Amino acid sequence: MKSHRRELWFETKARLAFVNITPEVERALAESGVQEGLCLVNAMHITASVFINDDEAGLHRDYARWLEGLAPHEPTAAYQHNLTGEDNGDAHLKRQVMGREVVVAVTGGKLDFGPWEQIFYGEFDGRRRKRVLVKIVGE
Amino acid sequence: MKSHRRELWFETKARLAFVNITPEVERALAESGVQEGLCLVNAMHITASVFINDDEAGLHRDYARWLEGLAPHEPTAAYQHNLTGEDNGDAHLKRQVMGREVVVAVTGGKLDFGPWEQIFYGEFDGRRRKRVLVKIVGE
Amino acid sequence: MKSHRRELWFETKARLAFVNITPEVERALAESGVQEGLCLVNAMHITASVFINDDEAGLHRDYARWLEGLAPHEPTAAYQHNLTGEDNGDAHLKRQVMGREVVVAVTGGKLDFGPWEQIFYGEFDGRRRKRVLVKIVGE
Repeated sequence: MKSHRRELWFETKARLAFVNITPEVERALAESGVQEGLCLVNAMHITASVFINDDEAGLHRDYARWLEGLAPHEPTAAYQHNLTGEDNGDAHLKRQVMGREVVVAVTGGKLDFGPWEQIFYGEFDGRRRKRVLVKIVGE
Repeated sequence: MKSHRRELWFETKARLAFVNITPEVERALAESGVQEGLCLVNAMHITASVFINDDEAGLHRDYARWLEGLAPHEPTAAYQHNLTGEDNGDAHLKRQVMGREVVVAVTGGKLDFGPWEQIFYGEFDGRRRKRVLVKIVGE
Repeated sequence: MKSHRRELWFETKARLAFVNITPEVERALAESGVQEGLCLVNAMHITASVFINDDEAGLHRDYARWLEGLAPHEPTAAYQHNLTGEDNGDAHLKRQVMGREVVVAVTGGKLDFGPWEQIFYGEFDGRRRKRVLVKIVGE
């Protein structure tokens, strides 16, 4: 069994952002030499997500507006978590809706994707350096 | 390490539908010959889900109503994604709530399930041909 | 390839509870002897979650209040699932928001975590004995 590990680093300019990381994951897969196996991609921070969906700007604005409705940033005093001195209580909730991780099949040395699948880093508390982990296991 | 890949195809009659795919996944597992490992089951389309829950019709109606409340199909003009000509903006949101994939342990050649766990395909933009990927790795 | 399986058992006093299970998962990993691989941790029941987030009591109260808003326990008659004689329709919905499972990379014999990642059992229909499955595969 082979295994390969790579970290991806981010520092988004906005509090909320979606970044297509598919090319970086493909690069990590190529490095790994794995032909058949599984590729785990997860946020290493608890106010961020990794998810798979469409690379379409209108959809990303829909996600942003919808998540803001489900877990508004303001008023920050609405979150008991913010009593710790943070203002990111909402980000911990948004991340649960969008998920921490994806597991992608590796087939013939490629990410085994449907026609529109792309991997995104979802940032809900940006403007600081944060990481994503890519772990590939297989043969 | 063994690996096995199978696609399942669907074309639901309704826009929103839940289909129990546990027997098909069990069949793929039997084909694989894997005794110990992991079984990934994921939607290959970004307006559909794979999730694990109860095979109970009332619960499925509860899910449908709840998801419609969280991300209504109408008015379709409420979604910027629909400016692309699609009318499935809501389906991309519903899919995030229900998830893209499940990973199931394989133990002794069986899906290692609790008493009520069943695998479902969740369709939120049906009436077209769509796929689920089953990828099994192990020994 | 090595594989290792362990069940964790719970019976929470409250209907809704969050339990940090990171030490038990670390113990299972140590037992496994796996140095490089993947660790799956999943609820074996369909009204419970396994998720990764922060071990902060205020945040857990935020989660509880937020989930109660998204899928209220009362009135129980609002859920068709409860026509089966259950009163846990809401728990099946809350579990979908928080997720069934996490997959964690294993690197150098350790859970490969970011700075604040901790694994939680999320119970939404407690006061009965329920299980979590830990399955570790790798070398």
